[in-house]
Amino acid sequence: MTKKEILEKSKYYARYKRAYMYVAMVFEFDHSTIAPKKGLEEGNEAMSVLMNDIFKTFKSEDYIEYVKAAYEKREEFSPEYKRLFELNYKGYKKEQNLSPELQYEYQIAANNAYTKWLEAKNKSDYSIFEPSLNKLVELTQKIISLREEKFATPYDSLLDDFEPGNNEVILDDFFSQLKARIVPLLKKIQNSKKQIRSDFLEYKISVPKQEKVSNYLLKFNGFDMSSGVLSTTEHPFTTFPSHHDVRVTTHYFPTRFASNMFSVIHEGGHGIFAQNEPDKFYEIGLAGSMTSAQHECMSRFYENLVGRNENYIHAIWKKISSICKKEYSDVSEKEFFEGVNLARASLIRTESDELTYCLHIMVRYEIEKDLINGKISTKDLNKEWNKRYSEYLGVSVSNDKEGILQDVHWSNGSFGYFPSYALGNAYASQILNTMKKDIDFDDLLKNGKLKDIKAWLKKKAFSIASLKDPNDWLKEITGEALNTDYYLSYLEEKFEKLFEL
Amino acid sequence: MTKKEILEKSKYYARYKRAYMYVAMVFEFDHSTIAPKKGLEEGNEAMSVLMNDIFKTFKSEDYIEYVKAAYEKREEFSPEYKRLFELNYKGYKKEQNLSPELQYEYQIAANNAYTKWLEAKNKSDYSIFEPSLNKLVELTQKIISLREEKFATPYDSLLDDFEPGNNEVILDDFFSQLKARIVPLLKKIQNSKKQIRSDFLEYKISVPKQEKVSNYLLKFNGFDMSSGVLSTTEHPFTTFPSHHDVRVTTHYFPTRFASNMFSVIHEGGHGIFAQNEPDKFYEIGLAGSMTSAQHECMSRFYENLVGRNENYIHAIWKKISSICKKEYSDVSEKEFFEGVNLARASLIRTESDELTYCLHIMVRYEIEKDLINGKISTKDLNKEWNKRYSEYLGVSVSNDKEGILQDVHWSNGSFGYFPSYALGNAYASQILNTMKKDIDFDDLLKNGKLKDIKAWLKKKAFSIASLKDPNDWLKEITGEALNTDYYLSYLEEKFEKLFEL
Repeated sequence: MTKKEILEKSKYYARYKRAYMYVAMVFEFDHSTIAPKKGLEEGNEAMSVLMNDIFKTFKSEDYIEYVKAAYEKREEFSPEYKRLFELNYKGYKKEQNLSPELQYEYQIAANNAYTKWLEAKNKSDYSIFEPSLNKLVELTQKIISLREEKFATPYDSLLDDFEPGNNEVILDDFFSQLKARIVPLLKKIQNSKKQIRSDFLEYKISVPKQEKVSNYLLKFNGFDMSSGVLSTTEHPFTTFPSHHDVRVTTHYFPTRFASNMFSVIHEGGHGIFAQNEPDKFYEIGLAGSMTSAQHECMSRFYENLVGRNENYIHAIWKKISSICKKEYSDVSEKEFFEGVNLARASLIRTESDELTYCLHIMVRYEIEKDLINGKISTKDLNKEWNKRYSEYLGVSVSNDKEGILQDVHWSNGSFGYFPSYALGNAYASQILNTMKKDIDFDDLLKNGKLKDIKAWLKKKAFSIASLKDPNDWLKEITGEALNTDYYLSYLEEKFEKLFEL
Repeated sequence: MTKKEILEKSKYYARYKRAYMYVAMVFEFDHSTIAPKKGLEEGNEAMSVLMNDIFKTFKSEDYIEYVKAAYEKREEFSPEYKRLFELNYKGYKKEQNLSPELQYEYQIAANNAYTKWLEAKNKSDYSIFEPSLNKLVELTQKIISLREEKFATPYDSLLDDFEPGNNEVILDDFFSQLKARIVPLLKKIQNSKKQIRSDFLEYKISVPKQEKVSNYLLKFNGFDMSSGVLSTTEHPFTTFPSHHDVRVTTHYFPTRFASNMFSVIHEGGHGIFAQNEPDKFYEIGLAGSMTSAQHECMSRFYENLVGRNENYIHAIWKKISSICKKEYSDVSEKEFFEGVNLARASLIRTESDELTYCLHIMVRYEIEKDLINGKISTKDLNKEWNKRYSEYLGVSVSNDKEGILQDVHWSNGSFGYFPSYALGNAYASQILNTMKKDIDFDDLLKNGKLKDIKAWLKKKAFSIASLKDPNDWLKEITGEALNTDYYLSYLEEKFEKLFEL
């Protein structure tokens, strides 16, 4: 195949993939936001047919011939194309022995598991979800066993999907570092005399008011509403059919103001990232190729390093306190800042504080690792969950809804994704450390100049994320490999000051 | 091909079609309700790729072989399958000579025309839309010229798409009958001394209140919200990926209460029809095969014969006047009934009254007929439009937004659809006449027993609509062919009473 032929094929398949992914993402968004309940099953079935057709296209002789030829000649192309061809080849190798039938079976199982998870969560009954989860785990193990490239463990194979360059050994070490410094810090906080007020976060704030807050924060942080949408769903997520069509979702609870506020800032971070990848990446079909930890790095950057910073709170307080004038008449800016930073062990990951967050991830990491490696079964997994929450966080889980059923991920078959959140936190702190050498981060926050922060991220981080594996990316931005100390020092400094330790 | 093989193929293609149509309809719905502006073009492009793939599937040797074999053996199958095979065969013959390239070109042209129409309408400037419209007309003519079956005129070929059994000769006669009795009636009304109050229809009613009204009316009329969705859009429509997923849309204008009210009742009529076709029709892929006039018949049945009936107004007035308690404190039930039935020549079809509605259709019918038959061009077509509005309705159009750009249809390439609305009106009155022999329509309305009306329609009309061409359908339900007198007598009786003529 000539270089010209490779480029032509590449254009053809980029267009095909863009089209089908666009449609699939819109469908998924619709499904999770507005589609009527009784239509969900038929919708799942429809999407399965489509996904199977996509799968067949990427298993076709024509496509494989192109992928192989492009990979062989990759050095002759620009860095963007070279990266695309490498990723395509890696994907082809992974799915080389996966039959359309098995892929279809997996797709159906994942769709059903999502529906069952929703029902189980509503009824707070893990046993409704368990058979579907078990099926998904079995199919995942089967799919891993068919892969040519072998890893030390089955779970390592999944980590290679989500976070190439990482494995259980690295992550075990990573989490033990976090544990070694976060757990003692949490203990100190629990013994501190400092009183932090947070009652007002349970004040009732109407949905229309929270909608105003959401729209204000998205715009303030730099999310472009003419290329985006904000909608509501069960479990907030962001999806981006293109950089001109980025969909952010949230969930409103009248008596949990911070839940929506930080959900919107977090998802908005994903959204800002998606809106600001280079055009070229979207054109050639490379956009969105970064790992989940790279994406979570940016959403957690906005959620915590920006959103929970006292200078940011200063910049938005005038607006927030004016929208919630009646409700927050007895709340000061300082109280608000401290309230949204209160650290205490709790049950729900998405609503947990910045400090204990990674302990929630540890529970999931350990469970899914053992599950995929066949060391534990799905049976009574809720008890396993509850046990670890009691051990690591010292809290007791009284129902499945607030326990094992709280997260959507496993119902999608996303095993191996959870560590991304913790890694993302660590990446974010390391990147912030570099950013602070270039620009006056705190001063920019204080003056609401979020666009300068976005510009820095766009130039240094967004522009090359899809081009590099996470470790290379981090090195390119910060000049060094992952160094967990930035993250842990940041946490210690922040919380020691906050709790006057 | 054996009977068994035909059934297997039929199942395969029904599943394929159901899946792709499901996805396409959801996409279209998303596109018209929530998708961000900047993403529209890429979305169009994505959908074009998909539609082209669908088109290729239905042009494949495998499909055509099945369609031909099934058509030949159709007498050996149940009435549902027989009908399906006949429709498939007819569709195949129509598109036999249409190349994927031309289909794709048409698809792109239609997508662009929609975008241009939106822009043109916003700017009230027909010249922005004109080149796109011209392109669509040319492509439509080209597509017609490729069809094997020849009709007396190109436009007749389109009428065969939308309303088989009809042609220009029949429709010219139909419209002249309407004109002969509606125009004199309108004149008499214009000279009548009767004062009808309608000022309150321009009172400002907030969107949340109108949303309450919409949801109430949909449920009251029998629309199942667990299998349906209500959303907002530029130009209200209904789409139904399945009978369990029926999407109704509306548009809220704070100072045009009746606009949303009757839009919702109208679209809800489409929705009730879609939710109540037999399950079997959805399974085998026959659902939704009725003509547009059959569907419009039901939406107009609900909009006018139900929605503007004084007994219906009596049944809903308590709720309406309670939601709009403050605004409608000086309005009586009788005034409300008369106000929503006020007949006067106006500019906007979708907001026109029951009496003058068909005159709006006549303008469109005559223009699109001449356009497709090559008797007039798209150039200065807005002047042609304005001239006819002045002639038939006696109103002068001062801008394109309220003139030629008011309707979405032509921007979709839907030429030949408009007559369906007028035919639908006539069918509806004829069906009502039969219904009244079986059940006490007015008494049921008065007592809010809409479910009995829905049950009658489900049994007599919905259950066989996809099985029959419109004339056969009408004959099966009412015992006679289309008789315009039912419609015209209904109008005369109603408006003579209302205006005390």
